[in-house]
Amino acid sequence: MNYKVFDQQDFQAVSQIIGDAERVLYKENINEDYSHDELGGTECYPDMVVRAISTEEVSAVMKYAYENNIPLTPRGSGTGLVGGAVPINKGIVMDLSLMNHFLDLDEENLTVTVEPGVLLMELSKYVEEHDLFYPPDPGEKTATIGGNINTNAGGMRAVKYGVTRDYVRGLEIVLPNGNVVSFGGKVVKNSSGYSMKDLIVGSEGTLGIITKATLKLLPLPRKAISLLIPFPSLEQAIRTVPLIIKSKTIPTAIEFMQRQTIMDAEEFLGKKFPDNQADSYLLLKFDGNSTEEIEASYDKVAKICLEQGAIDILISDTDERNDSIWKARGAFLEAIKASTTYMDEIDVVVPRNKVSEIVEFSHKLQEQVGVRIKSFGHAGDGNLHAYVLKDDLSEEEWEKRLALAMDEMYKKAKELKGQVSGEHGIGFAKKPYLKESLDSEILDIMKGIKLAFDPKNILNPGKVCQ
Amino acid sequence: MNYKVFDQQDFQAVSQIIGDAERVLYKENINEDYSHDELGGTECYPDMVVRAISTEEVSAVMKYAYENNIPLTPRGSGTGLVGGAVPINKGIVMDLSLMNHFLDLDEENLTVTVEPGVLLMELSKYVEEHDLFYPPDPGEKTATIGGNINTNAGGMRAVKYGVTRDYVRGLEIVLPNGNVVSFGGKVVKNSSGYSMKDLIVGSEGTLGIITKATLKLLPLPRKAISLLIPFPSLEQAIRTVPLIIKSKTIPTAIEFMQRQTIMDAEEFLGKKFPDNQADSYLLLKFDGNSTEEIEASYDKVAKICLEQGAIDILISDTDERNDSIWKARGAFLEAIKASTTYMDEIDVVVPRNKVSEIVEFSHKLQEQVGVRIKSFGHAGDGNLHAYVLKDDLSEEEWEKRLALAMDEMYKKAKELKGQVSGEHGIGFAKKPYLKESLDSEILDIMKGIKLAFDPKNILNPGKVCQ
Repeated sequence: MNYKVFDQQDFQAVSQIIGDAERVLYKENINEDYSHDELGGTECYPDMVVRAISTEEVSAVMKYAYENNIPLTPRGSGTGLVGGAVPINKGIVMDLSLMNHFLDLDEENLTVTVEPGVLLMELSKYVEEHDLFYPPDPGEKTATIGGNINTNAGGMRAVKYGVTRDYVRGLEIVLPNGNVVSFGGKVVKNSSGYSMKDLIVGSEGTLGIITKATLKLLPLPRKAISLLIPFPSLEQAIRTVPLIIKSKTIPTAIEFMQRQTIMDAEEFLGKKFPDNQADSYLLLKFDGNSTEEIEASYDKVAKICLEQGAIDILISDTDERNDSIWKARGAFLEAIKASTTYMDEIDVVVPRNKVSEIVEFSHKLQEQVGVRIKSFGHAGDGNLHAYVLKDDLSEEEWEKRLALAMDEMYKKAKELKGQVSGEHGIGFAKKPYLKESLDSEILDIMKGIKLAFDPKNILNPGKVCQ
Repeated sequence: MNYKVFDQQDFQAVSQIIGDAERVLYKENINEDYSHDELGGTECYPDMVVRAISTEEVSAVMKYAYENNIPLTPRGSGTGLVGGAVPINKGIVMDLSLMNHFLDLDEENLTVTVEPGVLLMELSKYVEEHDLFYPPDPGEKTATIGGNINTNAGGMRAVKYGVTRDYVRGLEIVLPNGNVVSFGGKVVKNSSGYSMKDLIVGSEGTLGIITKATLKLLPLPRKAISLLIPFPSLEQAIRTVPLIIKSKTIPTAIEFMQRQTIMDAEEFLGKKFPDNQADSYLLLKFDGNSTEEIEASYDKVAKICLEQGAIDILISDTDERNDSIWKARGAFLEAIKASTTYMDEIDVVVPRNKVSEIVEFSHKLQEQVGVRIKSFGHAGDGNLHAYVLKDDLSEEEWEKRLALAMDEMYKKAKELKGQVSGEHGIGFAKKPYLKESLDSEILDIMKGIKLAFDPKNILNPGKVCQ
């Protein structure tokens, strides 16, 4: 595609639409943050940044971009890991983080309607104050809900409660031509044509810009208990997971972690974790409305863990202890990042009875390729987060080893009937792996879908299937 | 589109692919059933019927149809209500009801993989024998799972458990060109490109033919208790529903029904319902793992109902009594059908706090238009099933009054921010109402999506958005 070269005139035209000099940035005034996301592997400065505050602004700027053939890339708080919000064709970045208002809390329909820039941590706090519950719980709490919807983020409670998709009821989006449309609503069921809502969820800002989202809520469970379960080896820990599932008790979350990750997190947070003596841990959460109900579930699971060689069962039943454990868990990514010079990530998802196989594979791969690979993740839903660390490798050596490690990991995931991404998305960085994992015909259909929404390929071009 | 006129040569070519004369039907040998679905408002005979028994057969016949420009319409057990499986452009009907095998029950991943022709009642029985649970529970138990996926059927347990979409993990489909592709799998999370799986769910056989489905299961709840709650008026019954939801207790199901519907069902089944004295009823179900857990929930709800004027609370806690109540509920559609000469249906869904408004509207409409309108449905999820009855109206008068009633009902649903269909789909019969309810741009995007899958418009043409 040949895009128009963005010039001073374009800047003035878009600035006029916005009418507030504080919310437009041009060339050298653009903060470095806008050139990359959280991992930073994909880098490119936009020509202009617009910090929109309303659907009308998003629509008007999008329309200008469309009419003038200028690429536009939407962005939340930039916590993505695959370059999805990086403007690789330059043009305009539409920063939606100021559109962060709660529009409606509907207790009769159990929905909340928000703007896309509301942060995950604000959302959960807001609804919990009303004794309600938004179950998706990705580790990165400073992500926006718009970003979460765009990657179909899953998070830790997916074992019991499912992923973001399951909680999106309705969306307002700005189409690539600038027109505003809505899908779904507060309705619980919908079978009225192809599910546009489900196409937008997980489309990484390539089909439309989300300007409003109506989300399903649940009553807030009254109690939560976490179990931290030390195991002598990771293999023993992870191999216990399918047995837990098979026992027909579904915990809210089943995470796995290794000692080194815990110690990195302790250092990063300057806080002690309840235990760091064992090689590996399962961290389980149970929630419900009564202590009895929860105890009945976890008694059964604790027994299975002990049978499988668990060293102990550490029960955490106060808010304070729960908080300290889950805060540490939330800091794993940052802690690993702080422990090395640079890293890249793998977010494969495999059937949950194959998690141990892919983790063991990643361990062997470390020696084989000669890089450190740190992993933790959602054992209960088969979603492994593995980080390949550069440490003090030369650039050349790093590139070589990283490519090798990535290739091997994705090949293994495919062999186990897994998928390229569980929740981080494809963005720019994972395109080659998506291409390899999918039937070429499916990729062509995806391109056809992109075309149906965006015939000029103007919205977040060069991402996902392109 | 100009399709090839199906001739004797085509019949021979397709018969040769199948190689079993018992599984191909031609012209005058085609059973009348294949010319319509359950409601019968849309009628057209195909030129040929193929009863496939394998993905390979589906693929080969589809390829032949594609290459020769012959329309092909997939069909399950024909229990649809909107003409989705009627071959309105003639050509081939692909009957998938013989593809009815259970392929894999995976207790470590809590999934079951089935062929599309498995009936809903077979599916639930099969998994329950393994102490597992497939939550979607549409009234029509002789529907195939393929049909349920194609309409994103919801059913009675959607209040607590969600709809079919939420339980589809992976699909194998035959594309309109005959190629076989798979999406998803046993993985719990997936963020690997646009969600093809979610596009196929609810696409009513227009984008691909489902030949295999991997479904998510849950542990089977150990106890279920139903409450039948008589009210002096429908208004009182239905207005209680948002209060139940607001109380933060989520029953498994909340259905509403009126005395006349119950009496029709009693006559149809030749069996007494536990009560038929009151004007209207709410029927609630609660499930869980212990009697205490369930009792705590329903105590609260029973209290709310009594405060709102309920006459009594009839508790049904034996399998036998539960069965008799829910069997009657399952027979409502058939019973209403048996009570008149002909009928048409409305499946609107509105936010659940608007159900009383749309039901009251439909009551007033009866007098206004001069037709009987019977309704029952899923009060808990806002999905109203309303049936307009012909009784002894002349054909001309019926057409006129039906059109008027339909128009008014869909207009009202739109006003309440509802959608055209909650779970029956659009098929052929509801296309004008979908067109009216959606932004024309969305309809164009849907057409673009159809084109990306089916450039020759050969698979179930003339349905949904066309």
